[in-house]
Amino acid sequence: MVDKALGGAGLRGQVAGETALCTVGKSGSGLTYCGYDISELADKVEFEEVSYLLSRGELPNQSQLDAYKAKLKTLRGLPAALKTVLESIPKSAHPMDVMRTGCSMLGNLEMETDFSDVNDHIDRMVAVFPSIICYWYRFSHDGVRVDVETNDDSIGAHFLHLLHDKAPSELFAKVMNVSLILYAEHEFNASTFTARVCASTLSDVHSCVTGAIGSLRGPLHGGANEAAMEMIENFTSADQAEEALMGMLERKEKIMGFGHAIYRESDPRNVIIKKWSELLAKEVGDDVLYPVSVRCEEVMWREKKLFCNADFFHASAYHFMGIPTALFTPIFVMSRVTGWTAHVKEQRANNRIIRPSADYTGPEAREVPPISAR
Amino acid sequence: MVDKALGGAGLRGQVAGETALCTVGKSGSGLTYCGYDISELADKVEFEEVSYLLSRGELPNQSQLDAYKAKLKTLRGLPAALKTVLESIPKSAHPMDVMRTGCSMLGNLEMETDFSDVNDHIDRMVAVFPSIICYWYRFSHDGVRVDVETNDDSIGAHFLHLLHDKAPSELFAKVMNVSLILYAEHEFNASTFTARVCASTLSDVHSCVTGAIGSLRGPLHGGANEAAMEMIENFTSADQAEEALMGMLERKEKIMGFGHAIYRESDPRNVIIKKWSELLAKEVGDDVLYPVSVRCEEVMWREKKLFCNADFFHASAYHFMGIPTALFTPIFVMSRVTGWTAHVKEQRANNRIIRPSADYTGPEAREVPPISAR
Ligand SMILES: CC(C)(COP(=O)(O)OP(=O)(O)OC[C@H]1O[C@@H](n2cnc3c(N)ncnc32)[C@H](O)[C@@H]1OP(=O)(O)O)[C@@H](O)C(=O)NCCC(=O)NCCS
Ligand SMILES: CC(C)(COP(=O)(O)OP(=O)(O)OC[C@H]1O[C@@H](n2cnc3c(N)ncnc32)[C@H](O)[C@@H]1OP(=O)(O)O)[C@@H](O)C(=O)NCCC(=O)NCCS
Repeated sequence: MVDKALGGAGLRGQVAGETALCTVGKSGSGLTYCGYDISELADKVEFEEVSYLLSRGELPNQSQLDAYKAKLKTLRGLPAALKTVLESIPKSAHPMDVMRTGCSMLGNLEMETDFSDVNDHIDRMVAVFPSIICYWYRFSHDGVRVDVETNDDSIGAHFLHLLHDKAPSELFAKVMNVSLILYAEHEFNASTFTARVCASTLSDVHSCVTGAIGSLRGPLHGGANEAAMEMIENFTSADQAEEALMGMLERKEKIMGFGHAIYRESDPRNVIIKKWSELLAKEVGDDVLYPVSVRCEEVMWREKKLFCNADFFHASAYHFMGIPTALFTPIFVMSRVTGWTAHVKEQRANNRIIRPSADYTGPEAREVPPISAR
Repeated sequence: MVDKALGGAGLRGQVAGETALCTVGKSGSGLTYCGYDISELADKVEFEEVSYLLSRGELPNQSQLDAYKAKLKTLRGLPAALKTVLESIPKSAHPMDVMRTGCSMLGNLEMETDFSDVNDHIDRMVAVFPSIICYWYRFSHDGVRVDVETNDDSIGAHFLHLLHDKAPSELFAKVMNVSLILYAEHEFNASTFTARVCASTLSDVHSCVTGAIGSLRGPLHGGANEAAMEMIENFTSADQAEEALMGMLERKEKIMGFGHAIYRESDPRNVIIKKWSELLAKEVGDDVLYPVSVRCEEVMWREKKLFCNADFFHASAYHFMGIPTALFTPIFVMSRVTGWTAHVKEQRANNRIIRPSADYTGPEAREVPPISAR
């Protein structure tokens, strides 16, 4: 029997496999990728180094990093058929549906037929995802066919460049870099677990990532950064935010960007992105959104001992950089694709099809009545 | 710790939730949908009645069935943008990638914005999936833009009609009907579990189904019927099949279409589809493929106590009906979409995000070395 009180619902606390990629909530360090603490990574390396770490198992040296970044640059272009598909998707679409469809279409055009080539497909997805979302966004919203083959040094800068039609400031490029590092990997979260279940049938890597995008889309998961933004942008002052939040809590509404399935006291990513959000607020001269966000954090802790997860201060940070809210979760995809695909490889290397059981709660065995007797 | 010997790997035998939809391998009856035994359903009802049962919870009476089938007929058409996408997918693509992309694109055009409309989206997918795969197949292979809005009475007949440009024989339509019933639902199999993990983030129904298609694609899951066909079509006689199989077993190769994660002695769907495959063999005058298949079954049981699962005799049955091997797994999709979506609704009705844990096997905590020291 699944007993929610015992934590069984949602497989909470149940071990579903092994990983060498990540620890979440282990004592001493809140989050590590391949043994490296998230705060050190966010401080010291580029996202491309993290992406390399997850796909190759070790941090690159300088010449490896140079070669890797040069390779990624060559992989930013969109095949004509993929452009046709993106141009067929209306402006009203959900950008996560665009990512999902773009990734799925890529699988038609560049199918993984041999698992030993998987790193080439991974590199391709890491490089081309910003192109996919920005090409669609700019075409559907501005009517332009943007040239996606830029010479930007990093994935984060590439994204901002395509979005805003100009290379980003150093600060913005730096924050994008940190953000992509923070979102890259998180053990058996729902979207990664989706990718592993798919991989366990020995399906192709595009199927795994397409499925993961679909799971990340949900408001209980990646969609939370957008939902947080939609909430905080309604508040014109910290006091008003507090009042509204108290009402929501009283009505037992879920506050997006708070709480976590594993962490119990804090999310180690929050302190990092919060610091950058504060810096950005100063840079752009904000005196509403950041104080509102801080007040939300205080109220939620005081009232419910609920803490900000990675998503909450990402909302204001992205907003300060001029990123439309609808593109928040696609950025998460651009980052987490590195974690998902590392898990796909890990699943394949030691595979058994993931097929749990269920408790049956339905009708007893019964005979099929003739249609005239129903 | 995950102990494969104890069955823990792949969550085997671990309860991941509740369902009222299906029992698999319970004593007394091998497989039930909502309490009805699979052999009775396959014998007595239409696939549309099973689809109604899974989406509405009870078998329809005559007027409900008539209205349901009439509704499905009106939902066979393809939006222009979806046709554009399908026409952009090359002939060389994997048909499951086409299904995955078609479903994902549909989500862009007809987004689920309110969970209370889910049955409309489900009906739409059930009705339009045969159109999606056949439109692409006929366009890419025969260069024709097939008219998908036929007046065929059933989903199975609609599919065969589009594929072969003429309405099917009564026998073929009947076998399609049985096949779609057999594949409709199967508790927490890997693709259904994918859909439930996705649903647990409160994502939309198209994301759930898109992810499920990706999982079904794998050769350890739905892809097995195609893989079985690719094996048996190489054999020119039962004796040759036996010899080849013995070699494969000696080399410890996996034989597709045999074995099961839950059933231990037989798959109740096999005896049903086998009977129809035999009938079809007589009808089309086959004296190779069916005897070859029977011999494979005998050898696998004699040598390994491995039995045919649902997929094995589906291979010959579909082949006898002139269905190209590459379309076998898409038929599985046309059917299983009914089970997947019923599980999505069930997950939503009693939800907690599905987020298991992992055993960590990676490097100890370590410091990030400067790039010059790597
Ligand atoms: C992340 C999340 C899905 C974890 O789910 P979970 O593991 O089931 O959560 P917990 O078991 O810790 O929840 C304990 C209680 O706190 C409540 N709670 C958790 N997060 C909450 C939030 N953000 N707002 C209000 N209440 C919340 C739950 O409803 C639950 O109450 P209940 O027992 O009365 O149902 C959940 O915290 C949530 O929905 N957060 C908001 C969405 C979000 O920010 N997601 C991004 C995650 S990175
Ligand atoms: C269905 C399947 C994935 C179930 O996986 P599972 O739960 O891990 O299987 P089991 O635990 O019952 O396997 C027990 C042993 O039999 C072997 N076995 C199972 N199916 C086999 C097959 N079809 N051919 C050869 N050996 C097989 C397994 O390799 C395993 O041996 P091991 O312990 O030495 O590794 C597996 O039987 C399989 O791969 N079958 C072929 C693919 C197929 O037809 N899939 C469609 C399923 S409807």
